[in-house]
Amino acid sequence: MANTTKPILLYTASTPNGHAASVLLEEMKLVYPDFDYDWQKIDMQTNEQKEPWFLAMNPNGRIPVMVDKSQGDFPVFETSAILLYLTEHYDKNKVFTFDQVKEPKDFSQMLQWLFFAHGGVGPMQGQAHHFFRAAPEDIPYGKKRYLDETKRLYGVLELRLKDRDYLAGPGRGKFSIADIKTFPWLRFHPMATIETLDEWPNVKAWFDRCTGREGAKLGVEVGKAPQN
Amino acid sequence: MANTTKPILLYTASTPNGHAASVLLEEMKLVYPDFDYDWQKIDMQTNEQKEPWFLAMNPNGRIPVMVDKSQGDFPVFETSAILLYLTEHYDKNKVFTFDQVKEPKDFSQMLQWLFFAHGGVGPMQGQAHHFFRAAPEDIPYGKKRYLDETKRLYGVLELRLKDRDYLAGPGRGKFSIADIKTFPWLRFHPMATIETLDEWPNVKAWFDRCTGREGAKLGVEVGKAPQN
Repeated sequence: MANTTKPILLYTASTPNGHAASVLLEEMKLVYPDFDYDWQKIDMQTNEQKEPWFLAMNPNGRIPVMVDKSQGDFPVFETSAILLYLTEHYDKNKVFTFDQVKEPKDFSQMLQWLFFAHGGVGPMQGQAHHFFRAAPEDIPYGKKRYLDETKRLYGVLELRLKDRDYLAGPGRGKFSIADIKTFPWLRFHPMATIETLDEWPNVKAWFDRCTGREGAKLGVEVGKAPQN
Repeated sequence: MANTTKPILLYTASTPNGHAASVLLEEMKLVYPDFDYDWQKIDMQTNEQKEPWFLAMNPNGRIPVMVDKSQGDFPVFETSAILLYLTEHYDKNKVFTFDQVKEPKDFSQMLQWLFFAHGGVGPMQGQAHHFFRAAPEDIPYGKKRYLDETKRLYGVLELRLKDRDYLAGPGRGKFSIADIKTFPWLRFHPMATIETLDEWPNVKAWFDRCTGREGAKLGVEVGKAPQN
C-alpha cells in the first residue's frame, strides 16, 4: 500500500469505472479545499488486480478500490459503493448527492439511476467491448446482442433526460453520483462501435454537460500513468 | 394500477430479481405485524413490462417495480434500489440492514456485496441463462464465457463466506439485503447448467441457511400466478 498522509487512497486504472471514482474525487477537491486523495495505478496488463495483496481488499479482483486511511485503512470495492461511501462521509454539504431524510424521493431516484448504470449500462456495454475488441473469435451473435442492448439502454437514458439536465433531482435535476457513474461509460462508446451519440440528442447534450466540467476533465486523466 | 389499501404494491414475476424483492417483503411482514403489501404479477410472456403504463414507472421496462402508495404512488425500480428504499423507510429496527451512522463500516460492506451481486452475479448469470436456455443459435463461446464467469463469481462468494454465516456484518455476519439480493440468483443455478453447489461448500451452507428461512420460502412463491 502506498505511503500517504491524505485520507483517501484510490487504486485505479484508466477505465469507465476507474474514472467514475476519480471524477467524484476531483469534483470534491474543487468543492472542499481541505479534501485530498492519492491514487495508485493498477497494471491490468500484468493482472496486478489479481495479486493476493489486492484480493485482500477486493476478493473480486477488480478496480477501483478505495481505502479510507483515516478509518484504519478501511477498504471499499464496487464503484457505486465507493461513490456512496465518499458522498456519505466526505460530501458534507451534499453537493453530489441528496439528503436521505429531507429529500428521500430525490435520494431514491438517484439510487435507481445509479443501479440502472451499475447493473445495466456497465455490464452490458462491457460485454459489447469484449465481443468487438477482446474476444479471440468473431462471434456475430454476441456483437449484435450487446450492441443492441447498449443502444437500448442509451435510449432509456434518452427518455429520462427529456427536459432534464441530469438524471436525478427536482426540476431539471442536479449533477450527482448517478451521472458520475454513468457518463464515463458513454465516453467509451466507440469501443462498442457506436460512432456518435447523435441518435440520442438529450443524451448527447447531457454528455457534453458532464464531460465539460472541470472535475470531470481532471478525473478522466487519472489512472493513465503511474502517479508521480 | 391495482386498488389496494396496503402501503406497498409490488409489480413482479417469478424471477431471481422479483424474488429478492418479495423475500424482503415477506421477511418484513414476519418482523413487523403492522406491515403489509400487495403484489401484481406482470406477464413477461406478453411483454406487459414494455407497456406504456409500466414504462411510466420504469422506462427500462423491467420487473420488479415497487410503488409506495403512502407516498403519492412513488415508484421505485431496480431491485437493489427497492431493497434500500424498503429498509430505509420501513425497517425501523434495522433488522435487515445496518445503521449508517452507528455501523458505517457494516453498512458499507453490505452495499459492497449488494453491488457485487447487482453488477456481477445477476448480469453475468443472466447471460449464462440466455446462452443456455433462450438464444436461438448455439453459441459455444457465449455458453463457456458466462458459465465460467458465473462460477468465478460463486468462487468470490466462497472466499467471502469462509468462517461467515452471511455476507455482511460483524463476526459471522447478519442476514441482510446483501444476502437477499444474492441467494435468489443462486436458486436458479441449474438454468446456468450448474448442477450442484458442492464445489463451493461455504456458499452451499449459506444458501441452505438463506433458503430455509420462513420469509424466504414465502417470498419465492410470489409472482408464480396472479394474486387472488
